[in-house]
Amino acid sequence: MPTAAAPNPTRYRAIVEYDGSRYYGFQRQVATQITIQGELEGALSRIAGRPVVVSGAGRTDRGVHALGQVISFCLDWPHGVAALQRALNANLPADIVAHQVAVAAPGFHPRFDARQRAYRYTIWNGVWRRPLLARTSWHVAHPLDVGAMQRAADHLIGVHDFGAFGQPTDGDSTVREVLQATWERAGELLVFDIVANAFLKHMVRRLVGALKVVGEGLWSEGDFAAALRAADRSCSAATAPPQGLVLISVRYADDCAAPTGRVVENE
Amino acid sequence: MPTAAAPNPTRYRAIVEYDGSRYYGFQRQVATQITIQGELEGALSRIAGRPVVVSGAGRTDRGVHALGQVISFCLDWPHGVAALQRALNANLPADIVAHQVAVAAPGFHPRFDARQRAYRYTIWNGVWRRPLLARTSWHVAHPLDVGAMQRAADHLIGVHDFGAFGQPTDGDSTVREVLQATWERAGELLVFDIVANAFLKHMVRRLVGALKVVGEGLWSEGDFAAALRAADRSCSAATAPPQGLVLISVRYADDCAAPTGRVVENE
Repeated sequence: MPTAAAPNPTRYRAIVEYDGSRYYGFQRQVATQITIQGELEGALSRIAGRPVVVSGAGRTDRGVHALGQVISFCLDWPHGVAALQRALNANLPADIVAHQVAVAAPGFHPRFDARQRAYRYTIWNGVWRRPLLARTSWHVAHPLDVGAMQRAADHLIGVHDFGAFGQPTDGDSTVREVLQATWERAGELLVFDIVANAFLKHMVRRLVGALKVVGEGLWSEGDFAAALRAADRSCSAATAPPQGLVLISVRYADDCAAPTGRVVENE
Repeated sequence: MPTAAAPNPTRYRAIVEYDGSRYYGFQRQVATQITIQGELEGALSRIAGRPVVVSGAGRTDRGVHALGQVISFCLDWPHGVAALQRALNANLPADIVAHQVAVAAPGFHPRFDARQRAYRYTIWNGVWRRPLLARTSWHVAHPLDVGAMQRAADHLIGVHDFGAFGQPTDGDSTVREVLQATWERAGELLVFDIVANAFLKHMVRRLVGALKVVGEGLWSEGDFAAALRAADRSCSAATAPPQGLVLISVRYADDCAAPTGRVVENE
């Protein structure tokens, strides 16, 4: 048995990738539902021989993936960070991995200290489903006008009340600042990259659901802008499914917790 | 009950994509093992109300994927090919899809008539596993010298006895003609594209297994060339795992059954 008082725990931060397909999201739930946080805490608790609590930068939903989730935890670990990363990855299931482990500043919190989050949403816009893309994209068979979707997305840039597209996760404010919102078409793949200071719950998936309706021609660019201005959830379109969404990276004021370019460049 | 004699069955050909993860390969096996051929025949038999036999161009192994498998079958179908494709895809599981369905020449056989097959093998050559690439790549943590792998692969071009790298599937000959064998590195992804008139059983995976040993520096380019010349299976390296392999396309003399560029261009 470890002694009751851990001698001198250190705070660590790590960049985590996961295939979210079989998880009930990042955040720990009731014991019968497996979560990313639960798996990370289980692995670290086995390593530590005592309970370890993990914080994450983004509370990704059930079925959502991550390339660059940032986590933090306190641990009394006598060896170096490379050995900690090996021990952590050896104790995690195959669909979760820590790409980087580093010592964090004592008070570091991955969610409260984050300055920017980048998400990517992928649509497969072909007539027939794509088995080899099924776990990482939304199949929309109807041809989408990506030019119209981009013009509508341009309205997102800046500080807005995004109440039409999500619920607040911390506090009551639904005001967020979007820094980038770009659609790129590569053949029948449509890729949406969005960067904001923070996101509301379900915000990216609700935005993509509404932009898809613009791409179908059922909403005009003006309808989308009006929905955004109304800041009323009752007027937004259906939520896009989770498997198309990936948390790409998280940035901090010191800008050293999210050098995920190495991981992302090969996607 | 349908009548015993089908009035006037037509021969069809189709291009099929599948995620092979949960299948025991293309070829029908004992009833307890699900196969791609078994699923295709089951779907077509339900549509026809009688047993339908499916032939395929490539007998992909357990766990191997396809973007451009070519199949053929005879069916008495009173509607057009578009309706047949809809009916087929509605009856297939989500991880198999027919991208094209067309009327074939009466005697067409997808394997015997094929002139070229193209396969792609993907290696993730980074220190840590990649959950989001796990189903479609082989994780090799040790850094690989892709230049050495390419120089070794250059020896494959032309007509050779490939007995060192596979077993014959039809007849006794292990002679095949390789037309292309190229490695490309994109960050930590290594992609091997190989085109041949035909392949031996396990040939691509055995070649990749041996080329990986060259990339690690354990075999020289000369060792690889000597193994090829020896045409003896006892001297080849371990077989690469199946999930990194995709049957990309199949070409025919009439060159109209494999316009898979549209599907492939977005990968």
